Amino acid sequence: MTETVKTILKRRSIRKYTDQKADEETIRTVLACGMSGPSAVNARDWSFVVVDDPEELQKWAKACGRAEKIVAGSAFSVLICADGERAFSRAPEYRIINGSIAGQNMILAAESLGLGSVWLGIWPQQEKVQAQKEYFGLPDSVTPHSVIAFGYPDEDRSDTPHKDYEEDRVHFNKW
Amino acid sequence: MTETVKTILKRRSIRKYTDQKADEETIRTVLACGMSGPSAVNARDWSFVVVDDPEELQKWAKACGRAEKIVAGSAFSVLICADGERAFSRAPEYRIINGSIAGQNMILAAESLGLGSVWLGIWPQQEKVQAQKEYFGLPDSVTPHSVIAFGYPDEDRSDTPHKDYEEDRVHFNKW
Repeated sequence: MTETVKTILKRRSIRKYTDQKADEETIRTVLACGMSGPSAVNARDWSFVVVDDPEELQKWAKACGRAEKIVAGSAFSVLICADGERAFSRAPEYRIINGSIAGQNMILAAESLGLGSVWLGIWPQQEKVQAQKEYFGLPDSVTPHSVIAFGYPDEDRSDTPHKDYEEDRVHFNKW
Repeated sequence: MTETVKTILKRRSIRKYTDQKADEETIRTVLACGMSGPSAVNARDWSFVVVDDPEELQKWAKACGRAEKIVAGSAFSVLICADGERAFSRAPEYRIINGSIAGQNMILAAESLGLGSVWLGIWPQQEKVQAQKEYFGLPDSVTPHSVIAFGYPDEDRSDTPHKDYEEDRVHFNKW
């Protein structure tokens, strides 16, 4: 089993973090991985708002609804934005897929660097989309996609049962 | 740099494959990684059609439009399906994000195991969605999300320039 496969399989959502901050290089590596996934027609139609300033995290957290405590306690959190202006004009909804790929790349990079994370859904829930648009004053063309909170784990979920392979979700050669 | 980060950064889309087939364990590991990502409210609202039989691959490839040659030449290809019946009822479009996470996990697992891959978009392009629904006779509740073709690389794209970190896509603390 490769380290990458192990990282993928052992990842759990982590919502409690120590006070340790992440250094600039770590944040930059996570973001580079976010920007390194495939995107339909290579549109690279995303942007990222990285909040790592402790005071800004506390302010932003209040706009994050039920995720407030998680964001406030994170080392840094990232709002993935799907950028309608850069999107493939014939099928702009691909930007939802592209933003998701960026998110999972960041989560796995972080996991391998010792950071825990949790994916906090925004799109397609319109009240959450609106709250983020307003908080950051996003341009109309920019859709807040997802928030991912990152931090050094202060909980151990390695024993949490986790389904991996489910036979009944796999069809061979025919549906 | 961790192996996972290296795998993420060195991945390129690979469209030409040798004749080598993938063994059952490899396919199973790739699928297990697909099923190991987070999904909103843990809905796990995906299914996978894995086509690895050489004759079935040739037949299916004809339903894959411009991707015909890639699918026909792959060791195996996977149709990710987004399952409306299992989706979070208050926001079923999360299944698009969840399917994308599954796809990127499979791509990275495969990359680390020496397989190349390419993401072939289906949703949101309705003519592609229809072609897959018809070919496999999918239930109405099931949305064909994406096809990912896998195979042992018969091209070397490691020298292909690839943007990683783009400064102008990152905003710190404020938009």
